Amino acid sequence: MHPLITLTTDFGGSDEFVGVMKGVIYSLCPAAVIVDLCHGVRPQDIRQAALILASSYRFFPKGSIHVVVVDPGVGTSRRIVLLQADDHLFLLPDNGAATLLPPLRRAYEVTQEQLFLSPVSRTFHGRDILAPVAAHLARGLLPEQTGCRIDPESLARLPLPPLQKGKNRLRGAVIDIDHFGNLMTNIDRPTVEKTFLAADLPNITVTIGGRFLPGISSSYGSVPPGQPVALFNSRDYLEISINHGNCAHELQVTLDSIVCLSI
Amino acid sequence: MHPLITLTTDFGGSDEFVGVMKGVIYSLCPAAVIVDLCHGVRPQDIRQAALILASSYRFFPKGSIHVVVVDPGVGTSRRIVLLQADDHLFLLPDNGAATLLPPLRRAYEVTQEQLFLSPVSRTFHGRDILAPVAAHLARGLLPEQTGCRIDPESLARLPLPPLQKGKNRLRGAVIDIDHFGNLMTNIDRPTVEKTFLAADLPNITVTIGGRFLPGISSSYGSVPPGQPVALFNSRDYLEISINHGNCAHELQVTLDSIVCLSI
Amino acid sequence: MHPLITLTTDFGGSDEFVGVMKGVIYSLCPAAVIVDLCHGVRPQDIRQAALILASSYRFFPKGSIHVVVVDPGVGTSRRIVLLQADDHLFLLPDNGAATLLPPLRRAYEVTQEQLFLSPVSRTFHGRDILAPVAAHLARGLLPEQTGCRIDPESLARLPLPPLQKGKNRLRGAVIDIDHFGNLMTNIDRPTVEKTFLAADLPNITVTIGGRFLPGISSSYGSVPPGQPVALFNSRDYLEISINHGNCAHELQVTLDSIVCLSI
Repeated sequence: MHPLITLTTDFGGSDEFVGVMKGVIYSLCPAAVIVDLCHGVRPQDIRQAALILASSYRFFPKGSIHVVVVDPGVGTSRRIVLLQADDHLFLLPDNGAATLLPPLRRAYEVTQEQLFLSPVSRTFHGRDILAPVAAHLARGLLPEQTGCRIDPESLARLPLPPLQKGKNRLRGAVIDIDHFGNLMTNIDRPTVEKTFLAADLPNITVTIGGRFLPGISSSYGSVPPGQPVALFNSRDYLEISINHGNCAHELQVTLDSIVCLSI
Repeated sequence: MHPLITLTTDFGGSDEFVGVMKGVIYSLCPAAVIVDLCHGVRPQDIRQAALILASSYRFFPKGSIHVVVVDPGVGTSRRIVLLQADDHLFLLPDNGAATLLPPLRRAYEVTQEQLFLSPVSRTFHGRDILAPVAAHLARGLLPEQTGCRIDPESLARLPLPPLQKGKNRLRGAVIDIDHFGNLMTNIDRPTVEKTFLAADLPNITVTIGGRFLPGISSSYGSVPPGQPVALFNSRDYLEISINHGNCAHELQVTLDSIVCLSI
Repeated sequence: MHPLITLTTDFGGSDEFVGVMKGVIYSLCPAAVIVDLCHGVRPQDIRQAALILASSYRFFPKGSIHVVVVDPGVGTSRRIVLLQADDHLFLLPDNGAATLLPPLRRAYEVTQEQLFLSPVSRTFHGRDILAPVAAHLARGLLPEQTGCRIDPESLARLPLPPLQKGKNRLRGAVIDIDHFGNLMTNIDRPTVEKTFLAADLPNITVTIGGRFLPGISSSYGSVPPGQPVALFNSRDYLEISINHGNCAHELQVTLDSIVCLSI
């Protein structure tokens, strides 16, 4: 059984781009197991890709190869890198999509051109570089055979909105909006539990878009349908939702909106 | 060869939710065969999921495991159930998505927590409960090992729009609209054939949205491009379409609109 | 290992149509390897399917079976055909989707009804005819066992917009718009290289939608973010894009718009 390959892109579903990457992988590794992690990343939204990657990889088997192609810099001098972290491999352009991964054990710049399709286009490295390199890795190529070691400190990092911590007070931002219109913030559960006493959690006021929500609930169904609710989501971050509704539409809240917690 | 697992959700394609469920399944059952039945169910639309499930399962091999996660009640006390019908298995929240399945041979409430991921989140049972239980079933776990027998009569059932039958007259409703804008009704072919003489089928008038369509045709191409047509669709229900067009947009008809057949 | 099957349709993701085709294939060929090439073809847009097919198939292993279901004529007398070209198989309705394939070695009309599901619906031949025939081919059925030889010259062909060639001048059209809003033209690289001297490429003016773009660049990043750029895309056709932007929206250009190259 070969290591599993996951694909995360901003390619959407209206073109052949994802399918062609799979064709390249199967051509080199016919027994590959490929999983679409997400192809609905907003175009060029590297931060969304970083969030998806960091919150998902650990649900896959150790040794999986996670390929990310959200690559507005394709064809420029940005590097393609292979990263080892937490017994997983990550293959992606060096543009910040790895910002939220756990500490890296090793990092390589992928430079071995004999692994690539030939010729390499200037607009689709997913097909011409990342897919064939992933297939070679799935077949047993060692990471060090893809290129040269680089300093993980040299990797591009995304600026992320600040999470401001005060006494009985947190100030963060909406950093993702999912298919249901749920608003995911950058306020993680451990930080909330360090900032507030457990006994105070039901008394926290969550402020967003001019609305005040009372307390942090445990499930969408803790409030009646149509009502907003704050809870920790499946990534363990604070999320603002509307039970049976679309919170982003109904509260007219967008990415990077401010969210405050206080007593 | 393991039994095939199908996935039907309202997760759409803009997040990692479907991919993560597959990661969980492959982690437990590396040789799993997984098919995306549909992830474009309208958010929280249990009826659409019920229609998809009932009209699709029989095209899969006997023994397949059909997982449905359209689950607005996630985190509340609604049960997760495993159903046996027609030599297929159905694993889903007990919220009505099984309403249109054929008679159930057995039903179980899934309660064996050692089969679940740990901890179980309050917002994503697809990942934490349904995916791992499906993987265990694919590996050979018996249905009775997932929990306790329950009475199939105790399962939640959806209210469905009535199909009123008269002499030479039927009155139903639009219950689904597909990607092409075709309007699927709850008027099934056997009922039409019981209500009208075969010789009268070409003389039936179909009334919908203030339009009168003459007769039931056999294919979209029975009328010129741009014209509406009534026919039996691939689920064997009466459908109103526009040849080469989008009927829902052009007739401005929505879900639950009334459809009448008469002579 | 069975030959790989690719699926290209205009079914989108909101229904069970693609999933059901896979159920039929796995029922007949449990070890099938199926790749979604694209299901986001615009409804009834045979030309888009033709472009996707022709630019993608060669990235799959020789012997692959490429199934296309963009089929507004389903249920009418249009044929279903099986084509051999470049050591690949193509199974599709005879409606022009094969127009851009390389020279055909052999062509068959698929007529062996014992290979089909029974009964065959009048609205979903993807499920009832193409899926089972593809599965039988994957299991080793020979092309000549699907029906009778036909003359490749008898196949339906799409009208394509003309590419007018003059001295130091080309006039083509936008024939596809991808998920990113990039405008793909019918102006291919070899024709450009035959029409203009290599030394003149940077001096070419590209005219589209009332805009004049200077030169043909090598990558999106050759211009600042927000600026339009002309380059050869991953299919090796001239493409007009906006770096980090959506060209179709921002230039308000639609399919079939005229594009001119001149010095």
